[in-house]
Amino acid sequence: MIYTQPILTVWITHLIENYALLKQLAPQSIPAAVVKNDAYGVGIKRVVPALYQQECRHFFVAHACEGSLVRSLAPDACIYVLQGMGDDTLSLFHKNHLTPVISTPSEWIFWKQNAIPAIKPILNVETGLNRLGFRQSDLALLSESDKKQFSYIMSHLACADEAQHFMNQNQLTLFDQISALFPNTPRSLAASDGVFLGAPFQKEMTRLGAALYGLNTAPYRQNKMKPVLSVQAPVLQTAFVPKGDYIGYGATYQAPCDRRIGIVSMGYADGLCRSLTGRGRAFFKEEELRFVGRISMDNVMCDITDSPDLSQGDYVDILNDTYTVDKMAQDAGTIGYEILNGIGKGSRFHVIEK
Amino acid sequence: MIYTQPILTVWITHLIENYALLKQLAPQSIPAAVVKNDAYGVGIKRVVPALYQQECRHFFVAHACEGSLVRSLAPDACIYVLQGMGDDTLSLFHKNHLTPVISTPSEWIFWKQNAIPAIKPILNVETGLNRLGFRQSDLALLSESDKKQFSYIMSHLACADEAQHFMNQNQLTLFDQISALFPNTPRSLAASDGVFLGAPFQKEMTRLGAALYGLNTAPYRQNKMKPVLSVQAPVLQTAFVPKGDYIGYGATYQAPCDRRIGIVSMGYADGLCRSLTGRGRAFFKEEELRFVGRISMDNVMCDITDSPDLSQGDYVDILNDTYTVDKMAQDAGTIGYEILNGIGKGSRFHVIEK
Repeated sequence: MIYTQPILTVWITHLIENYALLKQLAPQSIPAAVVKNDAYGVGIKRVVPALYQQECRHFFVAHACEGSLVRSLAPDACIYVLQGMGDDTLSLFHKNHLTPVISTPSEWIFWKQNAIPAIKPILNVETGLNRLGFRQSDLALLSESDKKQFSYIMSHLACADEAQHFMNQNQLTLFDQISALFPNTPRSLAASDGVFLGAPFQKEMTRLGAALYGLNTAPYRQNKMKPVLSVQAPVLQTAFVPKGDYIGYGATYQAPCDRRIGIVSMGYADGLCRSLTGRGRAFFKEEELRFVGRISMDNVMCDITDSPDLSQGDYVDILNDTYTVDKMAQDAGTIGYEILNGIGKGSRFHVIEK
Repeated sequence: MIYTQPILTVWITHLIENYALLKQLAPQSIPAAVVKNDAYGVGIKRVVPALYQQECRHFFVAHACEGSLVRSLAPDACIYVLQGMGDDTLSLFHKNHLTPVISTPSEWIFWKQNAIPAIKPILNVETGLNRLGFRQSDLALLSESDKKQFSYIMSHLACADEAQHFMNQNQLTLFDQISALFPNTPRSLAASDGVFLGAPFQKEMTRLGAALYGLNTAPYRQNKMKPVLSVQAPVLQTAFVPKGDYIGYGATYQAPCDRRIGIVSMGYADGLCRSLTGRGRAFFKEEELRFVGRISMDNVMCDITDSPDLSQGDYVDILNDTYTVDKMAQDAGTIGYEILNGIGKGSRFHVIEK
């Protein structure tokens, strides 16, 4: 048989198991799902209905346009927009009943001028990441009455994937001090990685993103999450490459001895980062196949010399249960989040949902 | 004013100028447009109608699913599918009248069993890239009658972006030898980079991809192509960062002295490669703003200490006429193709077509 298209399997069953496990780890907290960036690449249209069925009613997105899509799938959910509300998105907020996360005094003033009935925004405060959020000096601009207008007060940890990092305790202490100024306002501090830091970090609502999608956000311990993506790609051609021949663009790889290669139908267009050149691998029946030559847009060449039974039409594993998104990220010199983003968004896969 | 969404401008006018210039450079050749990978990220739905209006009637894609989309926009065009025809895509080929590029003997047999009336496939031969294509030993499997069945014979250059690379002449010589076995069959050897190598490489059809989209495929000379994408992103917040404070995930950046930062609404989810951390930059009124701290999914922090008039709601340039996709790629340690792929596919932009 001849096959040409790579296959992406999205394990919705694993997503649901991950969600259940994360809820168990923070049993006192409301679990919110972070589905920004098309659910980290996994697909808002797949993820939101599945979690909604599990009674998830709190969703975080980055942009209002993403919130609008979530609204169409979760009619009665709270949908929080991390980038906040702007002149460019005001109509989307009103139309779709979105909740802004407010990170600057100007946004707070803008909100008061354009408030949406029955919506209470979230206040985001800065505690050490030095990204979005009210600075401590900004807090004085809020009146006592203002301080009662928020549905949650939140902050975001910078180093929660390192359990022993000094920043965690610093941020927790500062967050506790600041949130004490907002009595009766529920709090949210932990994203996935923060959940693993234990109860003091979990507060009233957790924001579950990366770990939902199978990433190991607590790399100091074994990953308890199940992978949500697996990928197989077909071998379009096998070929003999004599010693001394070059492989791929720029002729950067020269065969040190006679080699057999497989030309695999997946490239950086499909999220196979070009930085995996010379460092990435595929798998065929437990055999590891090293990438040889530069990864191109639609293809990658693998050394199949030690897999004599591999032939045209066979599929190789690009991501599987043991070679996960996190492992590929390590090979590529990045983090699992960026890999997930690239592969999940690939539009040329045959997609199977399980 | 408060703005939250980054803006992507797609310069279709520049695409058309690039197409005209590339045609001029190879006046004897039929110009085919390579629109695989959603037109390198620029968008098949934007690119194909624009080129069709310029009387382009030959399009290359990688996958049959992409060919189907092109067919809906270019009803009478020849659409060539580089990955070939497989059991998994046979019905798409027949339904959409797609032309396979045949790279293996098995595919040729498969084609003869499943030929589409009035379609003549392309034969792809390997001349040194060691990617897809008939190897020389495979050619003996074609009968004299077989050899007359192809609309084109093609090959692909490995090092055409280096004018003086020894591979270019080697591949040309071998291609000329092989194509001489196929009398009266038109030839195609040059992609964008090959066009700049001159007439002997241009043959009867060129395959114009990267240069159409503004990339410099002849980096040994000044780029004659106009950029097809520009990107601006709004500053969501400005903040003072005292000496010694950390910025971003992992607390990897520590402010060496008091700094002012802008939190910009664009991250690796939007194609701003994470490898630009510590190396990338944005621009505001000619001032260069260095990225500080790790790039996150939705945001990047810029050092705006030397731009005191920059404030919340201002837009900074992420890509413009002088800081091009190629320059960003250099900062990111990759090639323009991969940058274009990531940014062009970003779904969270407000898109303006010009």
